[in-house]
Amino acid sequence: MTDTLRQLVQEIEPLLIKYRRDFHKYPEAGWTEFRTAAKVTEKLLDLGYEVKFGANAVSQKDMLGVPSEDELKIHMERAIKQGAKPEIVKKMEGGLTGIIAELDCGEGPTVALRFDIDANDISEAKDEKHRPYQDGFSSENPGVMHACGHDGHVAMGLGMAQIITKIKDKLKGKVRLIFQPGEEGSRGASAMVAAGAVDGVDFILGAHIGFQAKKNGQLICSTGKFLATNKLDVTFTGIPAHAAAAPEEGRNALLAASCAALNMHAISRHSGGASRITVGMLNAGQGRNVIPPNALMKMETRGETTDINDYMYNSVQDIIAGAAKMYGVEFQTKIVGATKSGESSPEMKTKVKNIAQEMEVFTEIIDYVSFGATEDFSHFMTVVQENGGIGTYVMVGSQLAAGHHDFYFDFDESCLAPGVELMLKTVVDLIG
Amino acid sequence: MTDTLRQLVQEIEPLLIKYRRDFHKYPEAGWTEFRTAAKVTEKLLDLGYEVKFGANAVSQKDMLGVPSEDELKIHMERAIKQGAKPEIVKKMEGGLTGIIAELDCGEGPTVALRFDIDANDISEAKDEKHRPYQDGFSSENPGVMHACGHDGHVAMGLGMAQIITKIKDKLKGKVRLIFQPGEEGSRGASAMVAAGAVDGVDFILGAHIGFQAKKNGQLICSTGKFLATNKLDVTFTGIPAHAAAAPEEGRNALLAASCAALNMHAISRHSGGASRITVGMLNAGQGRNVIPPNALMKMETRGETTDINDYMYNSVQDIIAGAAKMYGVEFQTKIVGATKSGESSPEMKTKVKNIAQEMEVFTEIIDYVSFGATEDFSHFMTVVQENGGIGTYVMVGSQLAAGHHDFYFDFDESCLAPGVELMLKTVVDLIG
Amino acid sequence: MTDTLRQLVQEIEPLLIKYRRDFHKYPEAGWTEFRTAAKVTEKLLDLGYEVKFGANAVSQKDMLGVPSEDELKIHMERAIKQGAKPEIVKKMEGGLTGIIAELDCGEGPTVALRFDIDANDISEAKDEKHRPYQDGFSSENPGVMHACGHDGHVAMGLGMAQIITKIKDKLKGKVRLIFQPGEEGSRGASAMVAAGAVDGVDFILGAHIGFQAKKNGQLICSTGKFLATNKLDVTFTGIPAHAAAAPEEGRNALLAASCAALNMHAISRHSGGASRITVGMLNAGQGRNVIPPNALMKMETRGETTDINDYMYNSVQDIIAGAAKMYGVEFQTKIVGATKSGESSPEMKTKVKNIAQEMEVFTEIIDYVSFGATEDFSHFMTVVQENGGIGTYVMVGSQLAAGHHDFYFDFDESCLAPGVELMLKTVVDLIG
Amino acid sequence: MTDTLRQLVQEIEPLLIKYRRDFHKYPEAGWTEFRTAAKVTEKLLDLGYEVKFGANAVSQKDMLGVPSEDELKIHMERAIKQGAKPEIVKKMEGGLTGIIAELDCGEGPTVALRFDIDANDISEAKDEKHRPYQDGFSSENPGVMHACGHDGHVAMGLGMAQIITKIKDKLKGKVRLIFQPGEEGSRGASAMVAAGAVDGVDFILGAHIGFQAKKNGQLICSTGKFLATNKLDVTFTGIPAHAAAAPEEGRNALLAASCAALNMHAISRHSGGASRITVGMLNAGQGRNVIPPNALMKMETRGETTDINDYMYNSVQDIIAGAAKMYGVEFQTKIVGATKSGESSPEMKTKVKNIAQEMEVFTEIIDYVSFGATEDFSHFMTVVQENGGIGTYVMVGSQLAAGHHDFYFDFDESCLAPGVELMLKTVVDLIG
Repeated sequence: MTDTLRQLVQEIEPLLIKYRRDFHKYPEAGWTEFRTAAKVTEKLLDLGYEVKFGANAVSQKDMLGVPSEDELKIHMERAIKQGAKPEIVKKMEGGLTGIIAELDCGEGPTVALRFDIDANDISEAKDEKHRPYQDGFSSENPGVMHACGHDGHVAMGLGMAQIITKIKDKLKGKVRLIFQPGEEGSRGASAMVAAGAVDGVDFILGAHIGFQAKKNGQLICSTGKFLATNKLDVTFTGIPAHAAAAPEEGRNALLAASCAALNMHAISRHSGGASRITVGMLNAGQGRNVIPPNALMKMETRGETTDINDYMYNSVQDIIAGAAKMYGVEFQTKIVGATKSGESSPEMKTKVKNIAQEMEVFTEIIDYVSFGATEDFSHFMTVVQENGGIGTYVMVGSQLAAGHHDFYFDFDESCLAPGVELMLKTVVDLIG
Repeated sequence: MTDTLRQLVQEIEPLLIKYRRDFHKYPEAGWTEFRTAAKVTEKLLDLGYEVKFGANAVSQKDMLGVPSEDELKIHMERAIKQGAKPEIVKKMEGGLTGIIAELDCGEGPTVALRFDIDANDISEAKDEKHRPYQDGFSSENPGVMHACGHDGHVAMGLGMAQIITKIKDKLKGKVRLIFQPGEEGSRGASAMVAAGAVDGVDFILGAHIGFQAKKNGQLICSTGKFLATNKLDVTFTGIPAHAAAAPEEGRNALLAASCAALNMHAISRHSGGASRITVGMLNAGQGRNVIPPNALMKMETRGETTDINDYMYNSVQDIIAGAAKMYGVEFQTKIVGATKSGESSPEMKTKVKNIAQEMEVFTEIIDYVSFGATEDFSHFMTVVQENGGIGTYVMVGSQLAAGHHDFYFDFDESCLAPGVELMLKTVVDLIG
Repeated sequence: MTDTLRQLVQEIEPLLIKYRRDFHKYPEAGWTEFRTAAKVTEKLLDLGYEVKFGANAVSQKDMLGVPSEDELKIHMERAIKQGAKPEIVKKMEGGLTGIIAELDCGEGPTVALRFDIDANDISEAKDEKHRPYQDGFSSENPGVMHACGHDGHVAMGLGMAQIITKIKDKLKGKVRLIFQPGEEGSRGASAMVAAGAVDGVDFILGAHIGFQAKKNGQLICSTGKFLATNKLDVTFTGIPAHAAAAPEEGRNALLAASCAALNMHAISRHSGGASRITVGMLNAGQGRNVIPPNALMKMETRGETTDINDYMYNSVQDIIAGAAKMYGVEFQTKIVGATKSGESSPEMKTKVKNIAQEMEVFTEIIDYVSFGATEDFSHFMTVVQENGGIGTYVMVGSQLAAGHHDFYFDFDESCLAPGVELMLKTVVDLIG
Repeated sequence: MTDTLRQLVQEIEPLLIKYRRDFHKYPEAGWTEFRTAAKVTEKLLDLGYEVKFGANAVSQKDMLGVPSEDELKIHMERAIKQGAKPEIVKKMEGGLTGIIAELDCGEGPTVALRFDIDANDISEAKDEKHRPYQDGFSSENPGVMHACGHDGHVAMGLGMAQIITKIKDKLKGKVRLIFQPGEEGSRGASAMVAAGAVDGVDFILGAHIGFQAKKNGQLICSTGKFLATNKLDVTFTGIPAHAAAAPEEGRNALLAASCAALNMHAISRHSGGASRITVGMLNAGQGRNVIPPNALMKMETRGETTDINDYMYNSVQDIIAGAAKMYGVEFQTKIVGATKSGESSPEMKTKVKNIAQEMEVFTEIIDYVSFGATEDFSHFMTVVQENGGIGTYVMVGSQLAAGHHDFYFDFDESCLAPGVELMLKTVVDLIG
């Protein structure tokens, strides 16, 4: 049967690439994936899946870091202009862009596959050296770019959806496809879990193109040390004043934020393991000659363990309060994302490794890597594990044009087919 | 004749207030004053003035700190929507929003009056306690506000224009009205001077509502210690990287800018006189979890003398280069505004003081104040003085609701008529 | 008689230079001037003055910024080794190094002359280019240097003391000589005033070599805008920890202090006039690989007015508290010096100016300068003025080798004799 | 025989404690351990060891971070006052305080034991709650304290020396005892290696009280991930100026250092593993009212790998240069310590573990810990391994009163005897 499986994958390889480029061209950031989600929903319905979407797939009150209603509206309109079905988009109002699709193939365990669908707030390189630009499929949406490979993930998800329907008879159990919005920023998993996305799941598999598998032919069978994280929006509010005539009457929010940013990065390393701190964005001020009364920082902390993340987060709180005190300004902090740490299940790793070895496609098969970063997948996996299931997170090797989140990011599309084949054979292995 | 003059002013007082509120409602920042300038141009043409505008009033190559073409286009469209004549706006394309209007009243010297017309990049308070909001004439243009009284100045300029035509026969000489864009940021004066705005001027008078004259009834007859200034845009360019997976591969432009901002404000005071340093705006970063590869600072230096301003500017250059070195990022600086220091002429002060005393309207008449801030008027005045003319800058007292450039700024409109009367009588005194 | 006066001064000119070099060689910082004060006391007693010293000249409880007892002991021992009479030094125990000497020349008003005697905590240049080093009279006391000319002031005081006794018969009134310790740091004046140093004084004269009179032949007859000041010692107390094994367990006082220092210098300029902020010393840490649990900052604020100084001081308090909060450390602040602003009396200036003009020695006579710095003399002068007296502070021009408080500082000793002559003739003018 | 060994150890347990308290009372920092080294030398000579010390044990040109000659002289004098033999101290002039003692017990391999002897630059707590203070054996030497347990290590070394002589007949090979100065700061190992300290060594054993073994009864059999490190002294040199009269003429070294310190701690974490950065000491300025022309920072970088340490060190270089540029000051950096990373040999670990299990004294035996800190022992061990030998570094559990390098540090002396017993039995195992 495995030969047949490979053949099924090979048949859709051109489609995988077509999908990938289409999603690459119309990237949408977290909670605004209206076009992406509508396209996926449409196809899944066509294929005969039982599809939950909108309020059935995302618990609105658990959503973190949602854009304003006005912004969402703009993105909905753009999605429709760019080909999304209005009636589907309508049901996703408010950013409810997650999808849970299931195919019931008879009695048996439930296998879940998670695909993240959002893009990054990055302006894609407009440079002939950048293949997506040269080949005409670079981002049409200013300031947004698929710079982390999620476009490839969506393509793989749709490919899997299609093939699974063709081998339905050979399976005994349920295949659940989870298309997750807002992976960047750790914003989406908890709201989909709250909506029941992993209820009853026995096995869960997640995959990512690249990361530690930066060469074609590599496969990493399991991943651990997912970092816990908090995402924060911090605002400082001061008092404006004429910068020359009465600067002493102002309260400078820009300097409070600059001071906070600098000192946050100076939080002591932790002897217990990796920590991270990033102020990714800072916007402050109203005019060149006005003492700046406002500042907004978008930032995050991370830790190899929850304790280390808490240490970072607590230090950040003190620094914000201290900087505000220094400059006589007010401050406010808002959590807009959060996820816990995680670790792949060794049993699941072994299954994947055996399949990979039998495939004889991967030139380098690695048991395990320590991730040292954050992935919302760990939230799904940890919940599955807590309920008695197992899971793993694999990395599919691909030559990268530049690092993840770089505006020159691109991956080698030849990794898509082997990735799908591995997933497919894993499903067959589990419930075939 | 003076009684007659006061009467002429009293007749138009309601008009002054109407004008002021109209301009307050449609504020436009530097080089985007299309509606304001078009309205002014239209009226001046109606009144029979010889009106130079567009490229005849502003030397394009000397303009500093001009917004992008795209931005200008948006503002032109808005101006037309808000009532500006399209054919006039058309000639102001590129931000050529200055106006030089002259009325030839026979042989004699030339008296120039300067009125600044631009608003501030500030969001006006939407609060019932704020009179412009309560009375329905607060800003319709998001992020822009007349928070420095220039709306009143334009109103006074139009009032003067109207009355002067009525007393034309009584004058021997030329009255020139200069409506200056881009006063905020010291961007407009040099480009209008280059277009000939003060060629042949013997006397120049400028006026400002408020500042050191914060009480109704006050009049300040002359002003000195206008601060020299440089306005700069500074960009830092680093390298983006995934904030968790490979932060060490990034080059952090946000931290370079934060560090530069902080250390700039720490430049030592100068024993030779007042200095100022302000980073008024800072925008950095592309995403919460991306090492920020970009930062833009809008800033300025000032000095009581050109030497002190140079000291500040040179220190700033070292700090920018040092911060870039620290964080391994590139930097670029661009001068977008600059003006020199200035001092009113004592003879002109004496004239104004005598007129003010005869008016018996002002309850407190002050000879001179040290400004301690920057005004583009000093550029016009210094050129007039260099060519053998004299000039002064007066402040017309008004109770203020909040400091200049505060989003609660408002002035007492009862100052408008006395201000116009003083100007009018000065013109009559000089060429009557 | 004036010819005679000049002759008297010329006779002692070599002595003035000898004194100056002796005091230069054995500099002593504030409250440790045991050798200097003992030498002066000894000579004044010899000359027949009524001399108050020790507890009679300094109110112990009002002393600010006194070194520790252990330190004082070391300095007392050194003073004795360097030639001070032990029995005199004994009475100065605790740092009571001020002297009030009076010569009663009959009925009449009291004229006070103030001479400051302390040196600076600066290591003198050991360089052949530095004259005191080349000529063998540079500092013998490591870390201490007469870098502000007080050595010349003491010499002038002793010269005056000697000549006054010779013209005693020609005077009607009292001449009081005040030798003040701890001028640097604004530490001594208030404690001497509290001990009665200016009780009953009708005229007070102070003089300084150099400052704004940086050329030979200059004389400045009066000085104003003495800056108000606060001197502070700030300590931060954190928690030490092994810098590699458990850095997160430490609380870093060094970084709290660094952050505070940087942000203090970034306190906004004040539109009301000159301000100053200086963290002059920072000592922190216990070992290279220990998270630093301790930091001490010696600092000061200044303001052209008391209000501006208060603004600086209040901002400093907020910054200290904020930095402590940021780094989770404790802090303590202690005022170790303070003085108020001051302004010379115009009548006294006129007297001095007339005398200077008659002398025909000064090549440039300046009425008034704005000081822009702090002088403990303003404390004495302000108290005299409050009690109905008058006073002025003159600057005696001298070519300087380097700025005040530079380790290459040196002045041209040819200014000493004209300085003494001016003082002498002022005394004669007032009570002759 | 093992019973006998334990008995031998038990006999000297009181002596171990006596030694420890004696060394604790007279702590000496790196390269100044004249008393400690002289006492050790004296006893080793008495016991009949072949003792190399002074220039025979330390290669002077390879010493890093040596105090000035003047300082060394003071410490030599103190050592003699505190009981060291002058003739021995004399030979250690220049800080040559290392000792290599060997006992030849016949043909066979060479076993080396390393004991570090230096104390920390920390002021010991004077507090009744602190046992060494309460029991009267706290530091007599101001500013220096055994806060890392090296006093216990010296005691164990002397205990071993004594017992080995008693079982000499039972051994076949050589026992070499290395007493290392300057372990703190990674200053001593390379200079002793250069003098031949580990030439011909087959087995090397090092031990530390506490660290990750913070409970009585714990034993850690091997250690890895010793951090590579660089120790730096950084000086900034500016220009002094009067802080009020001419602050703009100064160049502020204190602010340059503060800025550098802050930004160094903000160097991005490294995804490849642990990094450390510490500015442990900062001393700057000359006087409260002088713009500080001088600053000295004592600092260090560390990395889990040499690459990571290099990344930290290179970033530090850029930050120093950038801060100097910002403030217009000069800078100089000097390496005063450096060591490479290291990893215990698994074979040696197994030996130690077996012995520990047989002893039936330790309640918790741990195979391996990741150190995450720096130990100069790794330098010795790495050289031994490069030459074909093996080694391990054990941690002997002890309840600690406070963390290492805390001024309340103290350990439970009941760990000394088991530590010696383990070492002794390891020696017997290897060459018995």
